[in-house]
Amino acid sequence: MIIQLQNQVAEADRKAIIEKIKSFRYKVTPVTTQRGDYLIGIGKAEFDIRSLGHMPGIKDLHIVSDDYKLVSRKWKVNPSVVDLGDGVEIKQGNFTLMAGPCSIETEEQVEKTIAHLVANNVRIMRGGVFKPRSSPYSFRGLGIDGLKMFYAKCQEHGIKIITEVMQVSQIAPMYDYTDIYQVGARNTQNFNLLDELGKVDKPVMIKRGISGTIDELLYSAEYVFSGGNEKLMLCERGIRTYETASRNTLDLNAVPILKDKTHLPVIVDPSHGMGIRDYIEPMALAAVMAGADGIIYETHEKPEEAASDGAQTLNFAESEQLVKKLRATYELRQKLG
Amino acid sequence: MIIQLQNQVAEADRKAIIEKIKSFRYKVTPVTTQRGDYLIGIGKAEFDIRSLGHMPGIKDLHIVSDDYKLVSRKWKVNPSVVDLGDGVEIKQGNFTLMAGPCSIETEEQVEKTIAHLVANNVRIMRGGVFKPRSSPYSFRGLGIDGLKMFYAKCQEHGIKIITEVMQVSQIAPMYDYTDIYQVGARNTQNFNLLDELGKVDKPVMIKRGISGTIDELLYSAEYVFSGGNEKLMLCERGIRTYETASRNTLDLNAVPILKDKTHLPVIVDPSHGMGIRDYIEPMALAAVMAGADGIIYETHEKPEEAASDGAQTLNFAESEQLVKKLRATYELRQKLG
Amino acid sequence: MIIQLQNQVAEADRKAIIEKIKSFRYKVTPVTTQRGDYLIGIGKAEFDIRSLGHMPGIKDLHIVSDDYKLVSRKWKVNPSVVDLGDGVEIKQGNFTLMAGPCSIETEEQVEKTIAHLVANNVRIMRGGVFKPRSSPYSFRGLGIDGLKMFYAKCQEHGIKIITEVMQVSQIAPMYDYTDIYQVGARNTQNFNLLDELGKVDKPVMIKRGISGTIDELLYSAEYVFSGGNEKLMLCERGIRTYETASRNTLDLNAVPILKDKTHLPVIVDPSHGMGIRDYIEPMALAAVMAGADGIIYETHEKPEEAASDGAQTLNFAESEQLVKKLRATYELRQKLG
Amino acid sequence: MIIQLQNQVAEADRKAIIEKIKSFRYKVTPVTTQRGDYLIGIGKAEFDIRSLGHMPGIKDLHIVSDDYKLVSRKWKVNPSVVDLGDGVEIKQGNFTLMAGPCSIETEEQVEKTIAHLVANNVRIMRGGVFKPRSSPYSFRGLGIDGLKMFYAKCQEHGIKIITEVMQVSQIAPMYDYTDIYQVGARNTQNFNLLDELGKVDKPVMIKRGISGTIDELLYSAEYVFSGGNEKLMLCERGIRTYETASRNTLDLNAVPILKDKTHLPVIVDPSHGMGIRDYIEPMALAAVMAGADGIIYETHEKPEEAASDGAQTLNFAESEQLVKKLRATYELRQKLG
Repeated sequence: MIIQLQNQVAEADRKAIIEKIKSFRYKVTPVTTQRGDYLIGIGKAEFDIRSLGHMPGIKDLHIVSDDYKLVSRKWKVNPSVVDLGDGVEIKQGNFTLMAGPCSIETEEQVEKTIAHLVANNVRIMRGGVFKPRSSPYSFRGLGIDGLKMFYAKCQEHGIKIITEVMQVSQIAPMYDYTDIYQVGARNTQNFNLLDELGKVDKPVMIKRGISGTIDELLYSAEYVFSGGNEKLMLCERGIRTYETASRNTLDLNAVPILKDKTHLPVIVDPSHGMGIRDYIEPMALAAVMAGADGIIYETHEKPEEAASDGAQTLNFAESEQLVKKLRATYELRQKLG
Repeated sequence: MIIQLQNQVAEADRKAIIEKIKSFRYKVTPVTTQRGDYLIGIGKAEFDIRSLGHMPGIKDLHIVSDDYKLVSRKWKVNPSVVDLGDGVEIKQGNFTLMAGPCSIETEEQVEKTIAHLVANNVRIMRGGVFKPRSSPYSFRGLGIDGLKMFYAKCQEHGIKIITEVMQVSQIAPMYDYTDIYQVGARNTQNFNLLDELGKVDKPVMIKRGISGTIDELLYSAEYVFSGGNEKLMLCERGIRTYETASRNTLDLNAVPILKDKTHLPVIVDPSHGMGIRDYIEPMALAAVMAGADGIIYETHEKPEEAASDGAQTLNFAESEQLVKKLRATYELRQKLG
Repeated sequence: MIIQLQNQVAEADRKAIIEKIKSFRYKVTPVTTQRGDYLIGIGKAEFDIRSLGHMPGIKDLHIVSDDYKLVSRKWKVNPSVVDLGDGVEIKQGNFTLMAGPCSIETEEQVEKTIAHLVANNVRIMRGGVFKPRSSPYSFRGLGIDGLKMFYAKCQEHGIKIITEVMQVSQIAPMYDYTDIYQVGARNTQNFNLLDELGKVDKPVMIKRGISGTIDELLYSAEYVFSGGNEKLMLCERGIRTYETASRNTLDLNAVPILKDKTHLPVIVDPSHGMGIRDYIEPMALAAVMAGADGIIYETHEKPEEAASDGAQTLNFAESEQLVKKLRATYELRQKLG
Repeated sequence: MIIQLQNQVAEADRKAIIEKIKSFRYKVTPVTTQRGDYLIGIGKAEFDIRSLGHMPGIKDLHIVSDDYKLVSRKWKVNPSVVDLGDGVEIKQGNFTLMAGPCSIETEEQVEKTIAHLVANNVRIMRGGVFKPRSSPYSFRGLGIDGLKMFYAKCQEHGIKIITEVMQVSQIAPMYDYTDIYQVGARNTQNFNLLDELGKVDKPVMIKRGISGTIDELLYSAEYVFSGGNEKLMLCERGIRTYETASRNTLDLNAVPILKDKTHLPVIVDPSHGMGIRDYIEPMALAAVMAGADGIIYETHEKPEEAASDGAQTLNFAESEQLVKKLRATYELRQKLG
């Protein structure tokens, strides 16, 4: 169950509520987020909801049958809004585009990408400075100095940025130079990282694990949300299956399922999802019709020279065409209702 | 390599060509389809194509690097057309709808479904009379008598039918009462069945195996095509993964990949692909944007009373809405180009 | 529920029992096997077992909660014995070896293999004459004439044979020339084939599907068993996963699970399970400790010249060593109890 | 390529070697481990090995075709030994047992487990104090205070411990209270954690990822090894597949493959691998025959009261029996050679 407490609840009332919940043999976890104070009760016993519902100090009480609670749409029917400022809002009802290279490489690269985004009215740029790589001998990103350059350039042109955080110790140094912390597919169940991102007052996007279930993604979201950070969105980016014809299997089924189960925005990453340039466009358009609230994809002036992921990266001409088609497709989806 | 022979090639020329191919240590398989005579050469050695290309009797010669040959788009760039007669053509450039119940149950059910299809200008009805069931104690379909009734009713209203064939011995008795033989996901690698369907002059739709790769699907298509039957289409219907949130994982990635690799029409089945009624519509619309040439889905007047698959079956109101949205989405796709 | 009827039950008693079962809203399926007459009741309602249990004509009554019934160990606690005659029995408590080439190729090959088997006291030879192949252009086996030669040679030396049946029409012509019909991994859910094998009075071994669940394998076994043929065994042969380091993932977990769930003998095929010669031995020995009742593996005088599957085939020296180690391992397992 | 430098190589020689490698357009990574100084060269160009091999300062030069280098058996044929002191060595040729509860709960629990291990001559106890849990509301372990108690008790009785490290910031505080750092299946690709463990002079065991490939496990090992820590071992603990009959699919195929590809010791965890108590024993014995250098499993005085993982935990009587059988099986394996 989720109990939302009244603002400035009296401590005695709060204690009485906690005692009452414990009397049902439920475990109580107090949660304070940017938007309110909650008590999460976890247990299985039947109890008389009326004995609880009328206690002083309770603003709202929901029974949520899912194992995740605060991210469930059974608790919060209205879709969540992640506000980045300057009129950039990620939410159901908007259509969000995030584009940019796999890795931040040079100032020139960032500038050219920004020009491309501005020309196409894309407001969020992606780009990695900490790169998770299977092999220790691969390029691992420009690090925090690269991030500072990347952020400064984007600030100049009103572009927000999303970039991957790989470990707890990076959260603080990145804080002043990022708009959205991205949790990558290898860290979806890095629970310490999720715990700490729950304490931050900045948006977070969690990618689904490489072979993560939809429920596990929702549990990971629950870590951040119950840690205190409601500025949260989810990302489908392809799963691992037996099929080897594509790098991953972009699982668009996850989109309507997630939209049904949670109030959080759902973004789709067709670049990592497929891994093959020629198929990015049809899968991105498909993702829109499946119900995605946004698309994140890789673009680079010269994909064949990119430091990483060139094979799945669009050049700017392809990117421009994709943006137009995505918006036309989203418009149709809105019209069809 | 694929060699198309001239019509009425002289036997001596034909033999000379075969001997030449064998001289490269290639295995030769002669293939006669509804549309021509071919020699398929399989081997790995390098050879001088000029020594072969100018021999008398050869109409056309293609080197096809894929392991499947006749179904490869490297051989035949133009998309194939499957003509069902009466103006019903399945092909890239048309958008085909096939709808109906999982199982044929009663005359009344068939009549009501036909009325629904006619009202929505859907020209092909699906419905099973031989049902593959995991348990021997489950309902296994009305059999050949059910098929005769089903076919007769549809004939009256200009509706074509597609229905599953489970074994070789059913091919002949079904022949006069079906328009498209469907090969189900459990029979994708039933090579004897594929061999025999290669000898039939009637369209065949092969579903991807339950955990079949895209290449295996193309190989299975090669069986039918090289057996002599070019009236062939493929169907993505969901694969088996670790994810349990849906019955199967509809793999829309397969659509652009198949459209790229083969000239055969590609149909998508979101009903089996997802298995959950509420998510059929978004996934069907997504399939259109991914590039599908058609959609096959399950509809029933009263899904909750269906003999099988009720949980993934749309009622007629839902079906009508889906058809409209599918056509609007296809129209957009055509416009976007 | 499973009701075993008394021998020569009176027709009136039989009818009364059926009516009683139907009165619980259970579906009744009568089953006659080589060893008895049964009524299988399928339903979910609660009922008073005493009202049924004492009716005349009932020899035995079991409530089996599994969805498969006759193959469940909840019904039949004692392990089944498959008797091939001449002292060759496949059963828990024996340790069965089956070895031979992937494909039967020549008389000489068969003779040499027989000599190898006789020298090592292996009583069952494997060898395919109908080969399921992904590509229509691959070698597809010697067919029925090859089988006759294979069987005759083995008969001379007291060797039993196991060979794959691919379709219903092969069952009858194969009948006089085979000791065990093998159902391959692509036919595990070829329900027509299973139906017909249920009517045959000859042993059948069903391989697990390429991505078949353990429950699906048990259901497929239920087809054959409830069709009337109790001479049945199961085979784990590797499943399809995301891992590409081996051809398949031999799933030894299936062995203790199957031994727990069913009374049928369980055989393991490490050759197809792994697909890499060097790893066959450790996996075969592991299979014994996991509880397998027997091992089937591929051996050939010259694996590098085998018509198929050479990469996973042992030569005779490796085979001899494997047999010794398998028997020593089985002996230890029996001792440990 | 891997170049081992001579002890106290002259700086000029070292520089000359690096320049020579770069002249082949190879990337050079210097690596210093507990046992030596290396230069790892990564590249694809052909070069004349003789021009490099005779340069002063080179002790040894290996061309390693695998993408992982230092953990490859192509470089180091002799199996690695992980020495825990007090005569406890983990290596091919020894058979290592590690047992204990999923979570450390109380002093009493630890004492009873130690008594059980001592009685059975098991020298390493497992037990988690930092627990990765899907849900933020689950028990997450006793933390560092629990670890101190756990370690102190084990020290008293000559028992070594293995326990999970979840993040970089735990490495230092755990250092004085652990014998083996375990990297869990959700952290196999937590590259920052691997980097830092590479700098520690204490043994590390890396578990295979939940759906990690064998190659990815070896890459992750390369992180630690090339980071400087050669005290390394690997653990197969079950992978995620479509099969739901067991919690995970213990992939014993990985054992002979890993033993072939790397010189590091390979441990198997049947408890997490299967997740069902009744099947732990057969799978553990199977793992021995597959070639495992050791087994890690869960045991608890009263599994039904365990704070976590009770369903896959053996009681002490079962554990005692397992240990005896494991040793008998290992003895046979050694005898068979």
